[in-house]
Amino acid sequence: MTISLADVQAAAGRIRSHVRRTPIIEIDLDALTSTPGRAWLKLEQLQYTGSFKPRGAFNRILKAMEEGRLPPAGVIVASGGNAGLGVAYAAAQLGIPARVVLPTSAPRVKVEKLRKLDAEVVQAGQIYEDAYHVAVKEASDTGALFCHAYDQPEICAGQGTLALELLEQTEELDTIIVAVGGGGLLAGVTTAVAGQARVVAVEPEAAPTLNTALATGRPVDVSVTGVASDSLGATRIGDIGYAVAAQADVQSVLVSEDAIREARRMLWDGWRIAVEYGAATAFAGLVSGSYRPGANERLALVLCGANTDPADLAT
Amino acid sequence: MTISLADVQAAAGRIRSHVRRTPIIEIDLDALTSTPGRAWLKLEQLQYTGSFKPRGAFNRILKAMEEGRLPPAGVIVASGGNAGLGVAYAAAQLGIPARVVLPTSAPRVKVEKLRKLDAEVVQAGQIYEDAYHVAVKEASDTGALFCHAYDQPEICAGQGTLALELLEQTEELDTIIVAVGGGGLLAGVTTAVAGQARVVAVEPEAAPTLNTALATGRPVDVSVTGVASDSLGATRIGDIGYAVAAQADVQSVLVSEDAIREARRMLWDGWRIAVEYGAATAFAGLVSGSYRPGANERLALVLCGANTDPADLAT
Repeated sequence: MTISLADVQAAAGRIRSHVRRTPIIEIDLDALTSTPGRAWLKLEQLQYTGSFKPRGAFNRILKAMEEGRLPPAGVIVASGGNAGLGVAYAAAQLGIPARVVLPTSAPRVKVEKLRKLDAEVVQAGQIYEDAYHVAVKEASDTGALFCHAYDQPEICAGQGTLALELLEQTEELDTIIVAVGGGGLLAGVTTAVAGQARVVAVEPEAAPTLNTALATGRPVDVSVTGVASDSLGATRIGDIGYAVAAQADVQSVLVSEDAIREARRMLWDGWRIAVEYGAATAFAGLVSGSYRPGANERLALVLCGANTDPADLAT
Repeated sequence: MTISLADVQAAAGRIRSHVRRTPIIEIDLDALTSTPGRAWLKLEQLQYTGSFKPRGAFNRILKAMEEGRLPPAGVIVASGGNAGLGVAYAAAQLGIPARVVLPTSAPRVKVEKLRKLDAEVVQAGQIYEDAYHVAVKEASDTGALFCHAYDQPEICAGQGTLALELLEQTEELDTIIVAVGGGGLLAGVTTAVAGQARVVAVEPEAAPTLNTALATGRPVDVSVTGVASDSLGATRIGDIGYAVAAQADVQSVLVSEDAIREARRMLWDGWRIAVEYGAATAFAGLVSGSYRPGANERLALVLCGANTDPADLAT
């Protein structure tokens, strides 16, 4: 299962009036890092709900509506994080019922946030995998449109729309650096820029879903921990993300927990940009030296979310 | 004493390679406020040091260098806030000694921050006014170039450069909304856009330096308190800010403490933008309804700083 550039382009047209075209800024890396040169940051953390996830959610829901396939039961998703917020937001904007299944262990603050977006929150199971199976089962019982957090073609294609914007905004790029969790963003971005730019996929050493899959030759379950696991917490790379990455020869690099923490702080200290650890992971790939760009390489990084408690950024 | 558009244009050329051209984003006000319509935000909080202040500092120092007037003693400033950071940063970048005079009551964290920028920190006097007089006296003793926090032509002209960028970035504007403390930013912006856009000056009810001056017909001391007083803490509008505002018929509006707090939270909740209370004051002027734009009015707001403790933004 994979996606095409045409899918991403169709997604861009479909979601245009529903999402923010987030800005880019050009930054000077010499100032704060040992990596010389310049890079663009795509400020996708300014997106509705504080992450890129509404792009994929709108694309999946709108496509179903176009095709007359949207059931009266609406949509269902299993995620207390960015994916859940993205689906709940998109559904609310489109006037569609949304159910979000969370494990009983989910923190109250996540439940409240989803309810504020008019989602119906169902708590079932001890861990996220349980909630996931409950949601899949319920979708098959009620006919609700199941929205996966990352491993569906419409979701991946929607996320890729940010890379089309990036190509327009920068005019020319050699490399795009993204963080990887389940691989939805990776699949979309890689497909969107194929033939124009290559992609560097950064993961925490503590959550190496893509790295392990590429080494093994197929998606496998990995143990996932670390500061970024609230947003990069998938325990296995999605089939689409894996297929696209393997085919496109995406470069996979890993970063330490300290590098992620330092990168997040650097974005605040140097630019007053607050991001979540998952988004800082992409920046960490560059500033820690895990990925070393060549001379004059035209680089962009995606800051993919800011659903973070900024308390520890105070100086 | 006043400044001209030519001063701002000269400043722009002078400081161009030293400051960031900060981006703008267009926002939809319907989403989160009762004020319909759209507006641009100038994200000046992304500037070096987290506020617009380096613009004026670079302009004052570089102009003195051009004219061969920069003394061996370097520069001196009395401010533990954004102005001190701006001058210390500019001096460090230009390889010039900087002395920053703070009252003995200044918090240790401010002293450390200035020292990290290579400034020599001198603590003298109980309150800022004492420190100010010490700095002025020392400048006259040592010949060091005194940099005022807001009331010098080069400082005001430098701050105005952000409005020239804004005019280029938006192509056309009716109104620019800025927060006012000592009036340096106000003077520069108003001068930069004269004949093209009008300026709305927003102040906390708890720190109404411009509002009181306009009502009185001259700058007068006012009592200054409130959440924004760390950045809008001048107790009297500067002579330049007052003269420019009075002459240009700047509209002065006031906002409550609650409106400032709510506007700051709204920027985080809706756009994941963290700003200081002073910067939120401009946004508060609009979203609280203190300033009511007309239909289709082309509006921009300056987010002028983010030297804030973001701890309370957590949700």
